Amino acid sequence: MTAATAQLTAATAQRHLLLHMTANGSLGPEGEDLLVVRRGEGPYVEDADGRRYIDGLSGLYCCQLGYSYGPEFAEAAEKQLRELCYSPLWLGSAHPPAIELAERLSRIAPVDIEHTFFSGGGAEAVETAWKIARRYHTLNGEPGRTKAIARRGAYHGLTIGALSLTDDPGLTDPYGPPAIDTRFVSNTSRFGLAPEFADDTAFTAHLLAELEAEILAEGPETIAMLIAEPVQNRGGCITPPKGYWQGLRALADRYGFLLVADEVITAFGRLGEWFGGDRYGARPDMITVAKGITAGYAPMGATLVSTKVTEVINRPGAVLNHGYTFAGHPLSAAIALRNLEIMERDRILDNVRGLQDVLAKRMAALTDLPIVGDVRGSGFFYSCELVGDLDGGGFSDRARADVIVDLIPRRLREAGLLARVYNRSAPLVQIAPPLISDRALLDRIAAIVAGTLAEASARI
Amino acid sequence: MTAATAQLTAATAQRHLLLHMTANGSLGPEGEDLLVVRRGEGPYVEDADGRRYIDGLSGLYCCQLGYSYGPEFAEAAEKQLRELCYSPLWLGSAHPPAIELAERLSRIAPVDIEHTFFSGGGAEAVETAWKIARRYHTLNGEPGRTKAIARRGAYHGLTIGALSLTDDPGLTDPYGPPAIDTRFVSNTSRFGLAPEFADDTAFTAHLLAELEAEILAEGPETIAMLIAEPVQNRGGCITPPKGYWQGLRALADRYGFLLVADEVITAFGRLGEWFGGDRYGARPDMITVAKGITAGYAPMGATLVSTKVTEVINRPGAVLNHGYTFAGHPLSAAIALRNLEIMERDRILDNVRGLQDVLAKRMAALTDLPIVGDVRGSGFFYSCELVGDLDGGGFSDRARADVIVDLIPRRLREAGLLARVYNRSAPLVQIAPPLISDRALLDRIAAIVAGTLAEASARI
Repeated sequence: MTAATAQLTAATAQRHLLLHMTANGSLGPEGEDLLVVRRGEGPYVEDADGRRYIDGLSGLYCCQLGYSYGPEFAEAAEKQLRELCYSPLWLGSAHPPAIELAERLSRIAPVDIEHTFFSGGGAEAVETAWKIARRYHTLNGEPGRTKAIARRGAYHGLTIGALSLTDDPGLTDPYGPPAIDTRFVSNTSRFGLAPEFADDTAFTAHLLAELEAEILAEGPETIAMLIAEPVQNRGGCITPPKGYWQGLRALADRYGFLLVADEVITAFGRLGEWFGGDRYGARPDMITVAKGITAGYAPMGATLVSTKVTEVINRPGAVLNHGYTFAGHPLSAAIALRNLEIMERDRILDNVRGLQDVLAKRMAALTDLPIVGDVRGSGFFYSCELVGDLDGGGFSDRARADVIVDLIPRRLREAGLLARVYNRSAPLVQIAPPLISDRALLDRIAAIVAGTLAEASARI
Repeated sequence: MTAATAQLTAATAQRHLLLHMTANGSLGPEGEDLLVVRRGEGPYVEDADGRRYIDGLSGLYCCQLGYSYGPEFAEAAEKQLRELCYSPLWLGSAHPPAIELAERLSRIAPVDIEHTFFSGGGAEAVETAWKIARRYHTLNGEPGRTKAIARRGAYHGLTIGALSLTDDPGLTDPYGPPAIDTRFVSNTSRFGLAPEFADDTAFTAHLLAELEAEILAEGPETIAMLIAEPVQNRGGCITPPKGYWQGLRALADRYGFLLVADEVITAFGRLGEWFGGDRYGARPDMITVAKGITAGYAPMGATLVSTKVTEVINRPGAVLNHGYTFAGHPLSAAIALRNLEIMERDRILDNVRGLQDVLAKRMAALTDLPIVGDVRGSGFFYSCELVGDLDGGGFSDRARADVIVDLIPRRLREAGLLARVYNRSAPLVQIAPPLISDRALLDRIAAIVAGTLAEASARI
């Protein structure tokens, strides 16, 4: 692409495309940059001006394999598109690729998780979990279980139902009262908490006691489900303390609600396991996935459902009155199947497992920088929580504008790294590199983050 | 596939797949049939046992081109997957296929509709329309516009937000109070109404007066949007009377709410036009699409937005705080672009326009059958509303079980036609054949429906 063509493309985007989570009216020659990504190769993407970046965010937490598996996926796509381009999963109809994928997922899912309800993406998968939870309780004679529990600062999607489970006033407030009556309990970040919570046992006990108190205060018979990410993305790769997921399971069993692991980001190798919850002993009743299920090569979401739940919702005569036209699309299913084959064949989980300690060490070293308050994460998924110039670690308006809005994103971009910078009350820098990254690339990513945050430290 | 393999496939589906809108627990050798669709060719699909059917429903109203364009779409898929498998439309980032598609859509969309917000499917597109409507009014200083208007019996999707706009207690009641405060007004079916409404002018005036009264009763300053399909699917291909859409536009302008045309089913040639509303002089502020945008060859949804709206939501600094990871997926965008090319090159709209009168005549002739109360539709989209053995046209339990649940679906299937049979208070038989269907195929479809309904008439 020539510079002129690139400019034309950007102008066309501004005239015809509404970008997501973007101030569309502020893009442009006089305003903020529009990044037009033109092609990918390995863990790199290239923009319309021919500049190359390390894709430190795997697209949007989904390009597990990077960008060079196109020919293999194209072959799978061609085979499927020639055979059957579409068929619904509605009204007693199904097709081989969705059936095969559902069977394949049951083999890698935690024990007792045998069924899959497909959807188009993560938000739809979360909506499905909610609707199945309600259906389950109603068929069980408990229609009064109408509330959900989620965690502070968590994000579970932006459709109106999923949005109710998302704790972010900037996202939820403009759209009126929540559709689902949701209570938010503490997430598992211990940064800034009392020193006693450095101990896993104490912290877990504290979190579970708070949750149990909330359940009892609301009335256990009113709670339909609890949803949580094995490692919470929003708030910065928040890992759970030891015993936490076992404790959630015990409370779910004691009080009869369903436990939903939202693995839209954490599944398919992000944490070095098929499902991130595997790392923490999670035994959920449902698992929501999307993103990495196709390594980003096609859109797809899914809700995996345990036998305990299907035994109720599949009672003879009970209609599962929910669905999406494009769910389990043959093309997406064929691509997801090929992705699972490739991940096994090319030992993608082993790559993460083999390199995660290297990355952990490189990231942990960043805490030596004055601006870095905490480093958290697991597998190929890390965040630095930043502290500023104010007493207590906050940022003055000046430091925020100078360092968080301007310097850090600019320097990362100049150094050729796409990473995520959250300008929130506690700002974050986050990475989630492709799972094919080798040691040299991880070193390079960590070095860019380190150099940028060192410069930022000097500016605070 | 051998019979044994087919059986194995069906058993695997029951063990691992949750079908949508299906009594999953009632499928099986002793229960209801599972149709496993294995391949497609032209307007036909073939099941796992090798039986061939005319796909009289275009998959689920999406396979505009039937099933033989696989090689062409595969070539588009390969090119895109080799170049760039994924890139987000988030946070100021975009990619060429989504930009190109947005530009292409603006060229076929009604005048003043220049921007597109992509999503994963129809429900997400409807959720987007709602969120954009709220954002528009809030930025306009009218945050109190929190209500929606939809039409009786309409379906707009099954995510919790879209579900609020859907009028079907069987779908909505299990999930608690609606997320969006929605008022339902009459749809445009005149079957069973007073004879004076056979006149378009009288009927339109009646409908618009009812709507205006509803707006005034609620308070015009509380209404955010009205959503309607150009031809309403649920309730049976309900076409609007002359002047109706012009009247909706006038009321939207008078009272300041946004007019949303839900074209998930009616766009991309179903009614012989790019957008079904074009046929009725609709001038909506937003258009929701999905299904046919890719001819079913990949999942995709989109919300098309007029300049009147983008001038407000794109004010400098205003962040559009909504999004979906897989929205505008490069693979889906490349396939949609190829679909639009093919539809032009192979004159698909012309095929519908050339044959629609033939189909209309064949379908209208069905009203001679005693069981057929009304025939409605447009383009390649028709429904027969059935009348039963009770006074007033209802069905006794016996007739319903015998004819609607058993005979009609069985005979259609035996005759090799996939069509939709709705077992509702007013039962329906519906067809929406692929837009590549020739005259002989349309004749064959109409003949199968006629033969089946003639036999059904004799059984009432």
